[in-house]
Formats: sequence, C-alpha cells, structure tokens
Amino acid sequence: MERKKVCIIGTGLMGGSLALQLHEKKIASQLVGVDSDPVHAQEALDRELVDQILPLNEAISLSDVVVLAIPVDRMLDLLPRILDIVDHQIVLDLGSTKAQLVETVAHHPRRGRYVATHPMWGTEYSGPSAAVKQAYENKAVILCNGTDSDSDALEWVKAMYRKIGMHLMEMDAVAHDLHAAYISHISHITSFALANTVLGKEKEENAIFELASAGFESTVRLAKSNPSMWVPIFMQNRTHILDVLDEHIAQLSKFRTGIAEGNTEILKSLIEEANKIRRILK
Amino acid sequence: MERKKVCIIGTGLMGGSLALQLHEKKIASQLVGVDSDPVHAQEALDRELVDQILPLNEAISLSDVVVLAIPVDRMLDLLPRILDIVDHQIVLDLGSTKAQLVETVAHHPRRGRYVATHPMWGTEYSGPSAAVKQAYENKAVILCNGTDSDSDALEWVKAMYRKIGMHLMEMDAVAHDLHAAYISHISHITSFALANTVLGKEKEENAIFELASAGFESTVRLAKSNPSMWVPIFMQNRTHILDVLDEHIAQLSKFRTGIAEGNTEILKSLIEEANKIRRILK
Repeated sequence: MERKKVCIIGTGLMGGSLALQLHEKKIASQLVGVDSDPVHAQEALDRELVDQILPLNEAISLSDVVVLAIPVDRMLDLLPRILDIVDHQIVLDLGSTKAQLVETVAHHPRRGRYVATHPMWGTEYSGPSAAVKQAYENKAVILCNGTDSDSDALEWVKAMYRKIGMHLMEMDAVAHDLHAAYISHISHITSFALANTVLGKEKEENAIFELASAGFESTVRLAKSNPSMWVPIFMQNRTHILDVLDEHIAQLSKFRTGIAEGNTEILKSLIEEANKIRRILK
Repeated sequence: MERKKVCIIGTGLMGGSLALQLHEKKIASQLVGVDSDPVHAQEALDRELVDQILPLNEAISLSDVVVLAIPVDRMLDLLPRILDIVDHQIVLDLGSTKAQLVETVAHHPRRGRYVATHPMWGTEYSGPSAAVKQAYENKAVILCNGTDSDSDALEWVKAMYRKIGMHLMEMDAVAHDLHAAYISHISHITSFALANTVLGKEKEENAIFELASAGFESTVRLAKSNPSMWVPIFMQNRTHILDVLDEHIAQLSKFRTGIAEGNTEILKSLIEEANKIRRILK
C-alpha cells in the first residue's frame, strides 16, 4: 500500500497506539500529532509517538490522512469542521459510537472523504503514557456506512487496518451502536457499578487489597476507565444502552429472587444458561 | 516442615492444583485422592495429580492430613463424618464460605483437628483437567476461627500455605463470608447475569464472537464457572450476597437514571468515584 503522511488528532491511548503501529508497519511516511492538552502533546513527542506536534489547520494541510482519536462528543464538533477544510485528505475516526457522528456529516459536501471506523481494542488506561505497541493486532475493526465514503478513501483505510493485522467487518452505523452496547458499553457500566458497590460498602481497604482475587480484578478492571471518554459514549448510545441495562438489571433480579427464595433449581438453570458463553468466548 | 501423608477429597480445580503444589514443594510424602466421580478419579491418576485413588475411609486411615476440596454443600455433610473417624489427622477445607461449616462442627468432640481455610485463588474452569501448576502462589489465604483448632494442626496448615507462597490472613468466619460476598461472590453473579443479558438479546453469535473485545471477555469470563460449585456458595452466603446484590442493583440504577436523564455531571461523578478502585487494585 502507498505510504501516506498521517496526522493524528488526539495522541492518547487510541491515537498514540495507532501511531506506534503506523510507524512500525511502515504505513505512514510522516506522523504529525495534534493535541489540545500541552502536557499530552509533550508526552507524545517524548515517547516518539509522533514526529512533531502542530496546530490543527497546519497539521491537516501537511497530511494525506487525518485520524480523529478524541472523545466522541468532541468528534461531533470537529469532524464537520475538518471536512470543511480538507480537499484530497482521507479522514477517519476511531470512536466507540457511530450513528450520531455519521448522521452529523451525512449531507456534508465532502462526506466522501470520511470513513467511519471503530477498532475493537482498548484498555482501561488513557493518555499518551497508555499507548502500547502491537495494539489492535488480531482484533476486529468495524467500518460503518462504507458506501458513503469515496472508494479511494475506503480502500486505503481497509488496507491500513489489514496491514496492522485487524479483522475487517462492515456494518450499518445504527447496527454498530446496538452491538457495541451489548459487547462493550454495558461491560463498562457493570464494572463501574461494581466498583462503587464494593467501595461504598467496604471500608477496610487493606482487606480488599489482600483478598481481591483474579476474578474480582477481572470484573472491575474496566472501572479504572476515563469519564471524559465514557460519559459521551453513554450519551450518544443512550437508547441502546438503556435497553441493555434494563435487561441486565432484570437478569440480576432473577438471581436475586432465586437466592432469596433458596431456589437452587432456578439458580442452576440460570448458571447453565450463562455457561453457554463458552461457545462464543474461547 | 515435617512432610506428611496427605489425602485430597475432590481432585478437581482446587484439590488437583493443591496436589500439584504439595508435590512440587515437597510438602506431602504421599498423596492419596478420593473422588466420587470415577472419570475424574481416573483423570487425576492419568495427570499424576495423586499417587493413588482410594475409598474415603481407607484414604483417611492411611493419611496424616485430610484436605476437603468439594462443593460447600457436600462439605456440610462430609466434614462431621470425617471428624467422627479421625484421631491424629489434621483436617482442612478449601471452601469459599466458612460460617455455616464452622458452625456445623462447633461442638464436635474432635473440632480441634479441623482448620477452616479459604485460599483466594481459582479459575472459571473445573475438574482435574483444570488443575494447574504454581496455583495459589502470591495469593491470600484466609484462616478462620483458628483458636478453635489444635495448635499443632493450625501451625502445620499455616506452614503448608507459607511454603506454597501464600499470604496468611486470620479472620472470624462470619467476617470472612461478608468480605467474600463483596470480593468474590458478587463478581460471579454480575458475570453470569451479563452473559445471560448478552446471550438472551443477541442472536448473531458470529458477530459477538468477532466483536468481543478484551474488556467484554474480562467482565464475562467468570460466567463459565460451574453451577455445582457456585449454587451452594450462593445458598450458604445468602444474607450477605443479597445485601451486596441489592446495593449493586442500586448502583446500576444510578447509572440508569443518569443516562436516561442525560445528566453528564452525575455520570462523571459516578465514574470518578469508581475510578478510586485504582487505589486498591494494581
């Protein structure tokens, strides 16, 4: 594939990790970073995530590809403004919600330059210091509403993700948001709520620290995730998330009833049902 | 420490993994297994978890130490019967609930031979094939109501866990069950319920399989856990678990309200509160 000059807006966990891949896989001939946080900007330079940091307009004019890796609320403001000023550039985003963003630029005269993507990778950490090598590899990436993108833009973005080692899936933006609610967003809510449950009730922190088993850590680790990233996701995907959350509370209530009534048969069948997750998780 | 002849009742995940440690750390001079499931018994022999499989009474009479590693409901039946027939033997259990078991044998004439323990290690798998080497190392183990145990029995059990590389904590059995509800049992319920939420709503399993990120896998992996082990735990620790579960549903409802009302300030503060889990998890 043709190497291009890439500019990454937001040099944190997602953007910084992508930058490392674009460098390592020789996808970018030049990597410019844009970051509104001067501490993060300096950190991105110090960690050599990008070659230089520039103001937004200058960075875009020097680039062939613009990657948006910022919280999804800021994306709604910035994407149309970027499409206003691009000509030949390919613009893509890495956001966790897609429907509202795609809708926002649906009638933009340069809609075709934009490719909506969601790489299904992340960690509970944030900022340039959270960027890691080999991120994204062997994970899925969803491309949404590809027929609205210019074919040169879509093909280059697909080639980029393939070269990183991701599995490509194409999906309508609304369907994406529904699936994301089940597969990602609800896990964060259960984890945040579990952390608050334990922190609220348990005061002997040394005891928690000593006792916490790998199982506990596994279910609460997402509770370390950043509110600046997650509040806007919950807002944009509100309808689907509420639907999943109601179902989740209903499922928890079934366990509650089974335990309260001492109904071991019900509990056994609820757990056996849950065990079917083995079929779809390795 | 003095090597002893050890008999392990239940050669699955917990008992089998302990057997591997007792062998590797040269703690046992002889390892006899007891398993009511003939397939598991054969598997334990094939995997060399134990030297031989014997019927219960014969195994106990040939041993100095008896380890109970069976579901906690079966423990309530078996522990008093074992105490009926031991004389010099040390008896310990690895169960996830302690209060009811300790209560059951509180007035047994040979109560002193028994040491109540809960090593805070496990995985979502079960049976002899789930036994792994180096299990338990660097994890906490809780010893309950140690003053009710004979000092020779208590000291040998402590020495055993130290030699395996565990951190010892002592705690009253009722306090243990309360802590275990927060640190372990609730995580399993949230994970089972999350699996049922996703499985119930989502029919496109290939999509789940492809999309499932590490975060999702982390929060649902405990949903693979065995009902024979977990239903009795939920029953024995019912009061504490219901208390935690009600609090957890209340915490989820706060997220629900914040999302439904579009209250970003509330959501931000709920997540910031949850982020404090960073202080107590590495």
